[in-house]
Amino acid sequence: MAAKIKNLERLCIHTITTKPLSFEHACARYAALGVKGISIWRDAVAGLEPGTVTNCLRKYDLSPVSYVRGGFFPALQTEQRARANEDNLCMLQEAADMEIPMLVLVCGAEPGQSLQTSRDQIKEGIEALLPRALSLGIRLAIEPLHPMYADTRSAITSLKQANDLTEYFADEYLGIAVDVYHLWFDEDLETQIRRCGKNRKLFAYHICDWKVPTTDMLNDRGLMGEGCIPLKQIRGWVEEAGFTGFHEVEIFSNKYWAEDQDHFLDRILNAYMEHS
Amino acid sequence: MAAKIKNLERLCIHTITTKPLSFEHACARYAALGVKGISIWRDAVAGLEPGTVTNCLRKYDLSPVSYVRGGFFPALQTEQRARANEDNLCMLQEAADMEIPMLVLVCGAEPGQSLQTSRDQIKEGIEALLPRALSLGIRLAIEPLHPMYADTRSAITSLKQANDLTEYFADEYLGIAVDVYHLWFDEDLETQIRRCGKNRKLFAYHICDWKVPTTDMLNDRGLMGEGCIPLKQIRGWVEEAGFTGFHEVEIFSNKYWAEDQDHFLDRILNAYMEHS
Repeated sequence: MAAKIKNLERLCIHTITTKPLSFEHACARYAALGVKGISIWRDAVAGLEPGTVTNCLRKYDLSPVSYVRGGFFPALQTEQRARANEDNLCMLQEAADMEIPMLVLVCGAEPGQSLQTSRDQIKEGIEALLPRALSLGIRLAIEPLHPMYADTRSAITSLKQANDLTEYFADEYLGIAVDVYHLWFDEDLETQIRRCGKNRKLFAYHICDWKVPTTDMLNDRGLMGEGCIPLKQIRGWVEEAGFTGFHEVEIFSNKYWAEDQDHFLDRILNAYMEHS
Repeated sequence: MAAKIKNLERLCIHTITTKPLSFEHACARYAALGVKGISIWRDAVAGLEPGTVTNCLRKYDLSPVSYVRGGFFPALQTEQRARANEDNLCMLQEAADMEIPMLVLVCGAEPGQSLQTSRDQIKEGIEALLPRALSLGIRLAIEPLHPMYADTRSAITSLKQANDLTEYFADEYLGIAVDVYHLWFDEDLETQIRRCGKNRKLFAYHICDWKVPTTDMLNDRGLMGEGCIPLKQIRGWVEEAGFTGFHEVEIFSNKYWAEDQDHFLDRILNAYMEHS
């Protein structure tokens, strides 16, 4: 079990968590509260010049952690897969231009073909990205998703599969984003986190909670402490595996997006300190 | 890949699939269509005398396949767990009285305690049931559920875990219900079905489909062929593993329950023949 969190040094927030806020407003608010890291969703900075983004990050002394989200490799047609590839290369360049050191990969799945075929296409997609990741110095983090997203969002639904993939490539620019929401129930989680750490592939750690009941399959994530995920136990495993990076709060919630975002941010900080 | 289904000899329908129909009406309709098996949900026969149920089954020449659903072993308080145990013993007696040869176990989970504690309580619960299962001659089938139900419905979320449990008990009255909805995405599924068959633990096979998109976490299951589950491939694995039992159609669907049930039953038969 991890020790109590003492300060905000490792707190990072994903821009989508406070979706109603503009990028600049989010940066200002996060910084005012003492948050140190920010993970940037592509939508949040669409239309902004890279220089505007980097200036804003410097102004508020925020460390960019992840650019979210590349991937979505599988598709029925070769041309669609080529487009996905182009788009991922684009995102790598965008990350480099904004000085964001990592791109999160939501690997994708195509319900019109077998999961095995989607998994093969994911492997091909990653292979095609790695040289550019190296040349730009941007790390790629495979994020295994909850199996309830296996139809269209990710054929990679366990940390074991993500570990298998990173061992297959054995590339220093390819690692894993462990998100408690997607993996908390896995009987094998401690073992796979240890394996991930031993391989030095634990690139990112995402937190939120699983509400009981959960009323929407996508946008009903909970604040830390609001649900049934053993957050301190999992953080303990992650720390024992050698992880010293940011704790990234990533909450998709129709409920919280409808509320006052300043109040919500206060609750995030409290939940982070008390329950993460 | 399994061969095309040629007739209805192995088709079974769960009463909940046609929830709006009374038990007797469901029996009459299933039989008129040539369905041979019926799995009986407790609600569907609540208030009926066992003799009424067995007479109805005989009248319509329907084989009772499963009684659904026992389990729900975990609870925070000892007294609650004792009540769950009593209720399961009750269901075994009800199954015996209605001459239903198998009780399906949805094992349960308690979000206020760790999954490991819930799993330990599940083990204790099954242990307490087995002597009565033997004395009444009723088989128990552990049904591993989809991980999206790990908060409150089942801490057993993979076929591997169910196989581990049946190997631990090595009891001829304890086996497994494989439901495609809960397990279709598992990279390890073929291997675990083979293991299950080798252990002679493949007691039941449940079918439906995973709709894309799925709009409700519980009651939006699809008709076979309507979603992305590779049904023929999984049936092939199940048959190679030696399974010769019924194919049980178990669809929870607010959409279909709101429709004309005769029309829905016609669609079930067509979907079964074409896509299962």
